[in-house]
Amino acid sequence: MFVKNTWYVAAWSHEVGPDALFSRVVTGSPVVMYRKEDGTIVALEDRCCHRGAPLSVGRREGDCVRCMYHGLKFDSAGACVEAPAQQRIPERAKIKRYPVVERHRWIWIWMGDPALANPDAIPDTHWLDDPAWRCLPGYIHYHVNYLLICDNLLDFSHLPFVHPTSLGGSEDYAKVQPKVERIENGVRITRWVLNTDVPPFAAAVKDWPGKVDRWNIYDFTLPGILLMDSGVAPAANGAREGTRVDAAEFRGCQALTPETETSTHYFFAHPHNFALDRPEVTRSVHQSVVAAFDEDRDIITAQQRNLSLDPDFEMMPFGIDSALSQFRWVVNQRLEEENQARQPSAKES
Amino acid sequence: MFVKNTWYVAAWSHEVGPDALFSRVVTGSPVVMYRKEDGTIVALEDRCCHRGAPLSVGRREGDCVRCMYHGLKFDSAGACVEAPAQQRIPERAKIKRYPVVERHRWIWIWMGDPALANPDAIPDTHWLDDPAWRCLPGYIHYHVNYLLICDNLLDFSHLPFVHPTSLGGSEDYAKVQPKVERIENGVRITRWVLNTDVPPFAAAVKDWPGKVDRWNIYDFTLPGILLMDSGVAPAANGAREGTRVDAAEFRGCQALTPETETSTHYFFAHPHNFALDRPEVTRSVHQSVVAAFDEDRDIITAQQRNLSLDPDFEMMPFGIDSALSQFRWVVNQRLEEENQARQPSAKES
Amino acid sequence: MFVKNTWYVAAWSHEVGPDALFSRVVTGSPVVMYRKEDGTIVALEDRCCHRGAPLSVGRREGDCVRCMYHGLKFDSAGACVEAPAQQRIPERAKIKRYPVVERHRWIWIWMGDPALANPDAIPDTHWLDDPAWRCLPGYIHYHVNYLLICDNLLDFSHLPFVHPTSLGGSEDYAKVQPKVERIENGVRITRWVLNTDVPPFAAAVKDWPGKVDRWNIYDFTLPGILLMDSGVAPAANGAREGTRVDAAEFRGCQALTPETETSTHYFFAHPHNFALDRPEVTRSVHQSVVAAFDEDRDIITAQQRNLSLDPDFEMMPFGIDSALSQFRWVVNQRLEEENQARQPSAKES
Repeated sequence: MFVKNTWYVAAWSHEVGPDALFSRVVTGSPVVMYRKEDGTIVALEDRCCHRGAPLSVGRREGDCVRCMYHGLKFDSAGACVEAPAQQRIPERAKIKRYPVVERHRWIWIWMGDPALANPDAIPDTHWLDDPAWRCLPGYIHYHVNYLLICDNLLDFSHLPFVHPTSLGGSEDYAKVQPKVERIENGVRITRWVLNTDVPPFAAAVKDWPGKVDRWNIYDFTLPGILLMDSGVAPAANGAREGTRVDAAEFRGCQALTPETETSTHYFFAHPHNFALDRPEVTRSVHQSVVAAFDEDRDIITAQQRNLSLDPDFEMMPFGIDSALSQFRWVVNQRLEEENQARQPSAKES
Repeated sequence: MFVKNTWYVAAWSHEVGPDALFSRVVTGSPVVMYRKEDGTIVALEDRCCHRGAPLSVGRREGDCVRCMYHGLKFDSAGACVEAPAQQRIPERAKIKRYPVVERHRWIWIWMGDPALANPDAIPDTHWLDDPAWRCLPGYIHYHVNYLLICDNLLDFSHLPFVHPTSLGGSEDYAKVQPKVERIENGVRITRWVLNTDVPPFAAAVKDWPGKVDRWNIYDFTLPGILLMDSGVAPAANGAREGTRVDAAEFRGCQALTPETETSTHYFFAHPHNFALDRPEVTRSVHQSVVAAFDEDRDIITAQQRNLSLDPDFEMMPFGIDSALSQFRWVVNQRLEEENQARQPSAKES
Repeated sequence: MFVKNTWYVAAWSHEVGPDALFSRVVTGSPVVMYRKEDGTIVALEDRCCHRGAPLSVGRREGDCVRCMYHGLKFDSAGACVEAPAQQRIPERAKIKRYPVVERHRWIWIWMGDPALANPDAIPDTHWLDDPAWRCLPGYIHYHVNYLLICDNLLDFSHLPFVHPTSLGGSEDYAKVQPKVERIENGVRITRWVLNTDVPPFAAAVKDWPGKVDRWNIYDFTLPGILLMDSGVAPAANGAREGTRVDAAEFRGCQALTPETETSTHYFFAHPHNFALDRPEVTRSVHQSVVAAFDEDRDIITAQQRNLSLDPDFEMMPFGIDSALSQFRWVVNQRLEEENQARQPSAKES
């Protein structure tokens, strides 16, 4: 069960080429994406209304797509406009069209009620293509339910344990309790670690005089979007008070999109605002993140295996779970709301 | 759920060698086939009545087969005739024997009530070994329910879309409505396309002066047998009226046999009556068919994946579905009949 | 459903190295095993109480183990002794500790009520490391329910059929009815075959003057432990009466440990008391056993496939099934007892 009335990241812009029919399952539904001749993105149900064959193995014809099973042709609004040997095409011969918005290299999709799709609600990720920042695009496929990855991202105390040689660094990082605040549709997490060791990924891209201050300030909001101001600055320079002298700053953008109940798409990038003319630094930052996210995947997939062995296992809440408990509450609240909106009220029935 | 009282194709003759114990699952039941010393085929339940071990990993002993788990020996009627350390063999120690008929290179099996097995009901496929025709034997394994393949074979409007470079040809083929008639246990489909382009598979084996007439006339009957008169003749030569001058004629023989609810055996050949002394033509025809059937498997397997994602998806009937709708009705009708025959009547109970 | 209050073999001693965290699923539960600094074995639940991550991908810290997801540290009794950023560790923050005993190269584990774990109840397998005997350690993983393997081991009439070229020998072996006696927690099986052919595995390691007497005398007890006195002696030398002159004697030790309902660990060795200074003989004996057990796995896995095709299939009992029927009765009896012990009595409720 997934939240429907929300914007999901469906793809990186470059994944949908000018001529391609790009297929991806989003919240359990098959979606085909392609670009019209003017370059704008179309997202349709990837399932012909006739016999259920996927259109993504079909054929582009101008701004239309033809199912290559029996030749039904659909326009970019999802209406069937041609059916061989069919005199009259019935009105209900159509497939779903999903609202899509391409913005800052991400293609956002709305799987719920199209009337509610408001592009203004899409979170700001302008760092992904802002010339003052640099990053590389990341994608990982997970064979676990997306909530286990949300849990992971909502508690960075795992950093020194899961990522000792990349994002992690010294274990005092885990000892600091972050500040957790409820915001609309999610939580804001603020963690400052002062006068600590330089974490490995930062040491790889910059020289540091000694101990550093380190921060991770991020919003984690529905459906599973993490937007983070993070960085490292020489210790005792006043970074916490706002003076980011000689700092290395990042604006992590991460998006979890459920594929099915047991698999997840994970889109991410880690823009930085220093060494803009040194692509090897951008690559190094990206590789540190990819290495770390592979470590996350290992431990979360192992966790999922354990949970599958015994569905009755009950997790034991610790203090560090505050953010993830709050976010799971937000998810359940929204699922409940959407569920009730689908039911007729007692009076109506 | 499968129709039981009908003849299924269980194997090509050459699949069951003189000494082999050949194993195949037919309509969900394990079957072992072998040849008695006189060459006639035996088909037994491939499951020892004692502990369920398959006899097909056992040992031939004359016309008997011995289970190599604990040594029970069964004769070709399925009776246990020897059991080590067992004084008296209980009468009910036996396995099912299935009626089988080997005819024209196909081995037909009857999975239902043996008393109803009438070899005269086996469809005529003499083209498979008639010296006036040539063909090669084909077999494909599918991971889909057999009805999806029936659907495919009952609507050839998919030819130009799924098989543009082999069986297909120009898309006007799909625009012609075939004639569909109900016959006993199935449907007869007749489609003539006049003055059309030579389809690629025909162009590969014969020179043609220009446009051609093309026909596909086939019976599709229970449990999933397609027998087809098809061909190509120079246009305007009167092929439709019966004059098949300079034509290339085929007698396609195809049989679908459910393995399980989600997998299917597919036996086929495409006999032709020209170029009898040119085996390269026979190979070319066969390869065109195999290439096309691989294309079918790709689209049908993709369709099955979509259907599995959402079991509630409802197909939308189009005019071209007339034949497949009728055939599915025939299947359901027969399943209902067999189901009722297994139940005691209201009076009896 | 598995018997809980019993000793299972969890591993060979050498599988758990001095520094390793060794993971194995036993009766459906993940277990991590390691050696304390004094070399003694610890077995803990391989699942952190916090979020369920496996400790076996964690880190040894002295005699403790740290979960490398969020850094919780557990001592060798299973108590959480450290949790980063956690002021007070709740008392219930602990994982299960399983009683373990390392004896004669096997590590035995108790998955049930620790209060009932009595090391005196562990069967004697001293031949595994007795200097008067020689053997090599064996392990096979099965994808079948463990009871199918119990069945196999409780009826050696399968030997000449499944193992004709290794353990088997002539088929008169199968014609002898063994003596079957009920003993505590299982059955004792005694089979003497007099004046028979030398079985292949024995011919491979010793010269024999002619026909031999052959015996298999074994106890098969809960949860699935086979301990066997077996051997071969020249015929008519009085082996049956106790005179084992020029005999080749073995003390087979075998243990089945369910992994899940559909998979099983199989530990085994086949100690012999002759040719003590000829390691090639020990290897030959071991290889014969491994080859035979691979044959068992083939037939039992094929049997499991047949049973999965039709869960309603009913096995037909034969005389040779006496021992396995009795053992299955013992298993069900014990499961029932344990089940009732878990339920409150009628009076209490």
